Amino acid sequence: MSNRAQKLLADIKNKNARAIGKAISIVENETELCDDLLIGLSESEMPQYLVLGITGNPGAGKSTLTDKIIAHYRKQNQRIGIIAIDPTSPISGGAILGDRIRMMQHATDSDVVIRSMATRGRLGGLCSCAGATVRIMAASGCNPIIIETVGVGQSEIDIVSLADISLLVSAPGLGDDIQAMKAGLLEVADLLVINKADLPGATALFRDLQMLAREKEREITKTIASTGEGVDKLIKQIELLEKDYNESSYILKKREASKKKEIIDWSLEMVRAKLEKNIEHFALTNSDPRLQAKDFIKQHLKDMQ
Amino acid sequence: MSNRAQKLLADIKNKNARAIGKAISIVENETELCDDLLIGLSESEMPQYLVLGITGNPGAGKSTLTDKIIAHYRKQNQRIGIIAIDPTSPISGGAILGDRIRMMQHATDSDVVIRSMATRGRLGGLCSCAGATVRIMAASGCNPIIIETVGVGQSEIDIVSLADISLLVSAPGLGDDIQAMKAGLLEVADLLVINKADLPGATALFRDLQMLAREKEREITKTIASTGEGVDKLIKQIELLEKDYNESSYILKKREASKKKEIIDWSLEMVRAKLEKNIEHFALTNSDPRLQAKDFIKQHLKDMQ
Repeated sequence: MSNRAQKLLADIKNKNARAIGKAISIVENETELCDDLLIGLSESEMPQYLVLGITGNPGAGKSTLTDKIIAHYRKQNQRIGIIAIDPTSPISGGAILGDRIRMMQHATDSDVVIRSMATRGRLGGLCSCAGATVRIMAASGCNPIIIETVGVGQSEIDIVSLADISLLVSAPGLGDDIQAMKAGLLEVADLLVINKADLPGATALFRDLQMLAREKEREITKTIASTGEGVDKLIKQIELLEKDYNESSYILKKREASKKKEIIDWSLEMVRAKLEKNIEHFALTNSDPRLQAKDFIKQHLKDMQ
Repeated sequence: MSNRAQKLLADIKNKNARAIGKAISIVENETELCDDLLIGLSESEMPQYLVLGITGNPGAGKSTLTDKIIAHYRKQNQRIGIIAIDPTSPISGGAILGDRIRMMQHATDSDVVIRSMATRGRLGGLCSCAGATVRIMAASGCNPIIIETVGVGQSEIDIVSLADISLLVSAPGLGDDIQAMKAGLLEVADLLVINKADLPGATALFRDLQMLAREKEREITKTIASTGEGVDKLIKQIELLEKDYNESSYILKKREASKKKEIIDWSLEMVRAKLEKNIEHFALTNSDPRLQAKDFIKQHLKDMQ
């Protein structure tokens, strides 16, 4: 490992905010120091940490709830990492909701490490960068590390696979199409939360979720994030589940599956970079794109038959 | 081309609804007849068609607006294709919002061809299936072909790249995080629509959009889809833009870029299938996933150095 990577890693372990930010940028941009840093991280002894995924539709009050969850852990003097997944701007390539995060009341607390992360331009695979960011935060002593997403789509499902425990936050009165969007996530989330539980429609939503939750024996917790009601109960559910998962080695199995997904995502990112370079010089024909794809990869990836 | 593919293609051209549905399923599932069918399609003379993308946040009234746009084209006796992109259920693997579509008033009209399509389980790349579906619908005489999306994420941006002309629908009062989610799409959409223009906040939203629209000289159209107000004006904008794009060969360039994207998406889907099979037998180590990914693809894709 180079001296620079060694120094950076030591600074991360010393909770140096700039070093943490720099390390994440190195991984995001895959710059020179990236491999060295990742080798160093993988050889470091890692403190225990829990990865908490918080997903759900816009309007469900995720940010307010996340704020309250952070406040709870801070009261217990735990250092927290937050990765906020934002929709990517296809032009600037960067995350666009940074401001949303910076507004959070914990932004000035040096033991709340916040990082906004774009869903990247292209692959849809989030796990590559986010996984490394989790480990950088963990090395700096963060526990838990919360991954919060905006929007609904493949990235949410990726995040659930990266989290040890994932919360799906919904709320009454969001309209039919919004509710329907959650269906994919409903099947994979570990805990279901009905936020804004004081609004009309909360009981009906509870009944709907109950049908889905029962199959997998999952808890549904009602919260009113704006007042903090129900948050303590939710934290208790998280702790119970963490204990459960640890005792049954379920978290280990989950992390192994997530590591495989990360390897696939990194691999595809490398393959995509190669293919996107090659497509520029590929002579398009009138034949169907799927058949041209077969020719294309035969030219550039000879192992693919 | 096999007899079965030839027969299927002839049935598609004869507007046989079952043949169209079957053909799309063949492409989605990449079953036996897939290549044959796609070869047949690419060798057929294709009637002219426009691909119209309609994206925007849940709650903006996209479905109602789409309904009104369909009604307009039906009055002119045009046959319409609609591809509704739904979030995928990671467990069932299928599209989950089919019902939303089936409820549409045009569902019994044989000249409105509706297909619900999942964002697929994994790749995030939508263009592969959706592109072939567009061509199947076009071969059956559909024009325009409308691609409507639910949710906001990478798939929306993919859809914009597949559309000749894309509309971004927003509405006042959707809340800050919902508005912010559009930012990525704002940069790439061809026409901006403020629906529910009678609601408070419409003027402020118009001002916000105006700043963004001006840079690319894009029109902002106000509509009230529930009453149909503004829809005629919107259609006129679409027609003007179509004329413009055709005269400047911009559509041809757009379709070439979209074909390249489709080739990349199909290629990555094939690569992913191979990698996912191989990862099962890959011996995980404690090394970082990114470094393991390098070993992994070196083992299975020797051209990747």
